Amino acid sequence: MQTSQIRLVSRPVGEPADADFELVTDDVPALEEGQVLLRTLYLSLDPYMRGRMSDAKSYAEPVPVGGVMVGATVCEVVESRSDRRAPGDVVLAYTGWQTLAVADARHTRRLDPSAAPVSTALGVLGMPGFTAYAGLLEIGRPVAGETVVVAAATGPVGSAVGQIARLKGARAVGIAGGPEKVRALTEEFGFDAALDHRSPTFRDDLAAATPDGIDVYFENVGGHVAHEVTRRLNTYARVPVCGLVADYNATETPQGPDRLPAYLRQVLTRSLTVRGFIQSEFEQRLFPAFLEEMTPWVRDGEVRYREDVVDGLENALEAFRGLLVGRNFGKLLVRVGEPSA
Amino acid sequence: MQTSQIRLVSRPVGEPADADFELVTDDVPALEEGQVLLRTLYLSLDPYMRGRMSDAKSYAEPVPVGGVMVGATVCEVVESRSDRRAPGDVVLAYTGWQTLAVADARHTRRLDPSAAPVSTALGVLGMPGFTAYAGLLEIGRPVAGETVVVAAATGPVGSAVGQIARLKGARAVGIAGGPEKVRALTEEFGFDAALDHRSPTFRDDLAAATPDGIDVYFENVGGHVAHEVTRRLNTYARVPVCGLVADYNATETPQGPDRLPAYLRQVLTRSLTVRGFIQSEFEQRLFPAFLEEMTPWVRDGEVRYREDVVDGLENALEAFRGLLVGRNFGKLLVRVGEPSA
Repeated sequence: MQTSQIRLVSRPVGEPADADFELVTDDVPALEEGQVLLRTLYLSLDPYMRGRMSDAKSYAEPVPVGGVMVGATVCEVVESRSDRRAPGDVVLAYTGWQTLAVADARHTRRLDPSAAPVSTALGVLGMPGFTAYAGLLEIGRPVAGETVVVAAATGPVGSAVGQIARLKGARAVGIAGGPEKVRALTEEFGFDAALDHRSPTFRDDLAAATPDGIDVYFENVGGHVAHEVTRRLNTYARVPVCGLVADYNATETPQGPDRLPAYLRQVLTRSLTVRGFIQSEFEQRLFPAFLEEMTPWVRDGEVRYREDVVDGLENALEAFRGLLVGRNFGKLLVRVGEPSA
Repeated sequence: MQTSQIRLVSRPVGEPADADFELVTDDVPALEEGQVLLRTLYLSLDPYMRGRMSDAKSYAEPVPVGGVMVGATVCEVVESRSDRRAPGDVVLAYTGWQTLAVADARHTRRLDPSAAPVSTALGVLGMPGFTAYAGLLEIGRPVAGETVVVAAATGPVGSAVGQIARLKGARAVGIAGGPEKVRALTEEFGFDAALDHRSPTFRDDLAAATPDGIDVYFENVGGHVAHEVTRRLNTYARVPVCGLVADYNATETPQGPDRLPAYLRQVLTRSLTVRGFIQSEFEQRLFPAFLEEMTPWVRDGEVRYREDVVDGLENALEAFRGLLVGRNFGKLLVRVGEPSA
């Protein structure tokens, strides 16, 4: 049997280009004891993947040049040499940008298709949802009546941040790009206020939407949004730093002025807490509690989610480029294959 | 009776100039019930005072133009209309840059001259020592074997940070300017390693002194020292931000490149905690514990301190300017008057 794979062939400079990748077919190795053969149904596309394409120092090893792009997937078990999994099982795996893969059965998590659509294991009930949950509750720690601001707010992390904040009694202000997304923030996700970061009056809009200042800024974009939000942070505000998508394609240190001294002065004079994190830090301790609390919220519609599904592995790269500039609307997934029925 | 006062007459731009202040004499008001008349023995000079001269948004109100410069003092009670204090008592007060002042007796703290020299209430056993203690233990949270770095390390905050870190089992690396101060760090204050930030090989020196990276950077200077230290922070490192003396006289946003995006990328990829604080945040909860733990350390010589005493209120401004560029060596005090007995 053969798998189609997208491999990294050179490290992108700036925006990832077609020439940095190749789509190849390769033989699937024979199963060894304890392994399963997996057919990819959904591939998750997430901003962190930009970091894996580079060899800059980070929290994870980069994808080697020549290697298959990594990524979380929802797969169907085609064949099994493990007691843990049977053909037809649907599992969460980490098999990357390919159609078929062999994995250790212990590195898969069985999904219950009756509890929620299996694709949610890549979004609201998976890593993005958990990122929102852990970062907001462990670092942001909003209390009732406080104001929480999040950007990329129709995305899988941002939309969960806003909705969890509201469930905890805080006021949620969402920022997105373009009128359609902004409308969805209040109408679909229940944010208390929604702003368009492309608006020429963004600074004033933000001031109007946060009359009591900002207590928690869930940072997942960076750039000019972060700059404006930072100006309105209250004393003792918390800033969980989960991503900086706006800068991920940057190829050089930006021109001045140097904003770092002023930033640190704000940290000092307002006793801010700025805390970078990766969800894996909290996984062992909190993931079970997350699933227990979040699954009924999703089932009962208290936390809503939106998926943006692209068909075909061959379209993954173009979709990923769009993700970095906010062209997706909701959790971006690639439908790689159909379940066998 | 008359008091000599140093008043702020205009807000300094950049380095505070003589013309921004005036030395005047004024009548001391008559005592009301509950008040004491205080004669200043020592005036404390501290970097935060630069902020009080400006009207930029900060955690405290600026000194009004025309007002007496604020500051902590050790005073002798000359006259009392309160049961709480008697003439001859030595107290900690906040009467500012003047020779005589009237204060509410409840706003003074009686000092025990037999426990420690009374000047230490402005340094190692006062606000600077407490800043070190609270920032290091509440935010820095060093554990045994970790590496703690602090700059301005012969100053009252820095020297206490290093010595407390060692008492808690951590490795202390101090940074100072000039060979005399650097020598004192190891010989007088017991740091494990000491570095001169003026050295052309500072980056390499820092790498050699922190072979296992840096777990806590107690930030009280900013500038190029902060830049070099940040590069060596370990995953989960903590950065209590207590001051940014290097930037206090800055008059405009510095030229580029803009280092903020790279800084935030480090916060993200290494899961750093950057937390601004003012010691007053922790005062009510921790000050008694601080005095209880620190007083015997100071008495037994486990925590050493150094004072840099300047004679005469008229020399306060020049001494303060020196403080901002590190000309003092130890806790900077102005001896304003002698005790009466």
